[in-house]
Amino acid sequence: MAKCYEQEHPKKAFGWAARDTSGLLSPFHFSRRETGEKDVAFKVLYCGICHSDLHMIKNEWGNSTYPLVPGHEIVGVVTEVGSKVQKFKVGDKVGVGCMVGACRSCESCANDLENYCSKMILTYGVTYYDGTTTYGGYSDVMVADEHFIVRIPDNLPLDAGAPLLCAGITVYSPLKYFGLDKPGLHVGIVGLGGLGHVAVKFAKAMGVKVTVISTSPNKKKEAIEHLGADSFLVSRDQDEMKAAMGTMDGIIDTVSAVHPLLPLICLLKPHGKLVMVGAPEKPLELPIFPLLMGRKIVAGSGIGGMKETQEMIDFAAKHNITAEVEVIPMDYVNTAMERLLKADVRYRFVIDIANTLKPASF
Amino acid sequence: MAKCYEQEHPKKAFGWAARDTSGLLSPFHFSRRETGEKDVAFKVLYCGICHSDLHMIKNEWGNSTYPLVPGHEIVGVVTEVGSKVQKFKVGDKVGVGCMVGACRSCESCANDLENYCSKMILTYGVTYYDGTTTYGGYSDVMVADEHFIVRIPDNLPLDAGAPLLCAGITVYSPLKYFGLDKPGLHVGIVGLGGLGHVAVKFAKAMGVKVTVISTSPNKKKEAIEHLGADSFLVSRDQDEMKAAMGTMDGIIDTVSAVHPLLPLICLLKPHGKLVMVGAPEKPLELPIFPLLMGRKIVAGSGIGGMKETQEMIDFAAKHNITAEVEVIPMDYVNTAMERLLKADVRYRFVIDIANTLKPASF
Repeated sequence: MAKCYEQEHPKKAFGWAARDTSGLLSPFHFSRRETGEKDVAFKVLYCGICHSDLHMIKNEWGNSTYPLVPGHEIVGVVTEVGSKVQKFKVGDKVGVGCMVGACRSCESCANDLENYCSKMILTYGVTYYDGTTTYGGYSDVMVADEHFIVRIPDNLPLDAGAPLLCAGITVYSPLKYFGLDKPGLHVGIVGLGGLGHVAVKFAKAMGVKVTVISTSPNKKKEAIEHLGADSFLVSRDQDEMKAAMGTMDGIIDTVSAVHPLLPLICLLKPHGKLVMVGAPEKPLELPIFPLLMGRKIVAGSGIGGMKETQEMIDFAAKHNITAEVEVIPMDYVNTAMERLLKADVRYRFVIDIANTLKPASF
Repeated sequence: MAKCYEQEHPKKAFGWAARDTSGLLSPFHFSRRETGEKDVAFKVLYCGICHSDLHMIKNEWGNSTYPLVPGHEIVGVVTEVGSKVQKFKVGDKVGVGCMVGACRSCESCANDLENYCSKMILTYGVTYYDGTTTYGGYSDVMVADEHFIVRIPDNLPLDAGAPLLCAGITVYSPLKYFGLDKPGLHVGIVGLGGLGHVAVKFAKAMGVKVTVISTSPNKKKEAIEHLGADSFLVSRDQDEMKAAMGTMDGIIDTVSAVHPLLPLICLLKPHGKLVMVGAPEKPLELPIFPLLMGRKIVAGSGIGGMKETQEMIDFAAKHNITAEVEVIPMDYVNTAMERLLKADVRYRFVIDIANTLKPASF
């Protein structure tokens, strides 16, 4: 018996969903829950396309369920608030990132680190408290507990600001936690894609000296002249890499392909920190001796808590930090996914939901 | 032309040296420098046998030169001090650990981290400032700059205290640096050998809850009843390991064989730290996703600076911490090396240099 997605909840919703591992997205009528007493409902205006959306629509991590409505870089305008909502009112500009729930009682939650709560609920593709599936932002409306809603400051452009809700916090949080946000430090950013280009902007705004490390020499001009990086290393150029050995306090590695860690560890000063924010599917080779010789660290970091996400958005607004985006219409999304697979985007696709998602059009 | 080791320096010395990659040690007459104005000369009483001595005598790390006099867990009594020596006098009980020199001007040195100075000079097998080779503590006398001499408190037994100069500082330093020394924390110690058994004692003295993780179920009784560990995990017992998932604030991994990191990473709480102090020859497999999901860290740590080494020795004396040792005569050293290779020692061999190293005997 086919499930009736339109009648599961009282609030009608419309978006685009993947139906199988082909990952092909197509229009999808479903429903969202009534706005609960602590919920905020909002009209979605823009939604960024994160690389993990691409993995999820094709079930490349093995945990996808269909139909799957992706999208966790969602911004919009509040249309309704529950009776106990304290922080938001109708008309506010808001956003939702990667998560919409957490236990709120564990040590992680108590420390504003809902992202590390073992019961954290992702924005799409998982089971919510009420037993229904969560659907993401490639859709016209969102409903979420106000705790997981971020306020978007007035001066932050909504389209170019949307990707900060995932890409931004993913790089901002480790820069802060690992103490790589101090003026005068030297930080490497590996990979100049959706995450990396935002990392350059945040690190520069923190007063850090930034070196981009990339396999692509042709990104040098862009990195330095447009994004403001201080220098650029071609990771395949052994002379360049050797000359930079032992010069970096930390590195944010955004690459999700399998790649060697040793050259990056060698770039670190003693006590330096290599922080992985990309998630290669296979284990990487970790040489231990170079770690011992300099008390170096290889760490991982995954998004950030809600308090820090708000802090990041406020910091971005203050320092005029946005993602570099290509705004696309909804019906371009499958082409966008093909281009994303080839890294053919500078640097983030954002879907213009409000103007191009039209249920009447089919 | 054979080098004349006996006439290189004015001070006669005698010890046992390896002559080739067989690693076989035999009596060796050589010489040590005159006691310089900042030097301390001392009669060696005991010297511990570190596992790295075994690697070095066989050139297993590829950087050994022969003849090689091993030994970097050296204790003795001062016989002469230079005119500008301030901290020591004749008759003092002292020790030398893994290093006898460093640049004293770099950032690491300025921060009392001579162990991470790129110009650090090891106690044996490398070239000293004067162009001659350094020789270790399997010998009757030592001469070293007072900066690299540690004072041994009166109540610390010299034989069982000697191994602390390498094994002790190797585990003490990361417990402190990575904040794993706070009462109430839960720390895992992987491997119950020369390093591991001392790590259990230090961690317990710091007030930490200690779990030993070992492949050998037969070490459980010893670990808990004799060394004072709170609990014991057999790393090959998947049920035990699973039940302990997410319970540890940090782990000190002393194992130098290639081994899987994932089960250890899984034992950590969010933000937990896995610190490697053993040095496997081949890279280990590092799964990245489990690091990201809990902002976990894999780090390395190598011995400690001189200031911290003194602090460690004073802490050991205060808390009656010594290594568990089997004191052996000098001419047993080759047998000891064979037993060490089979991990047949509980837990550290210490050579009784003063009573058994006899140049007159051959």
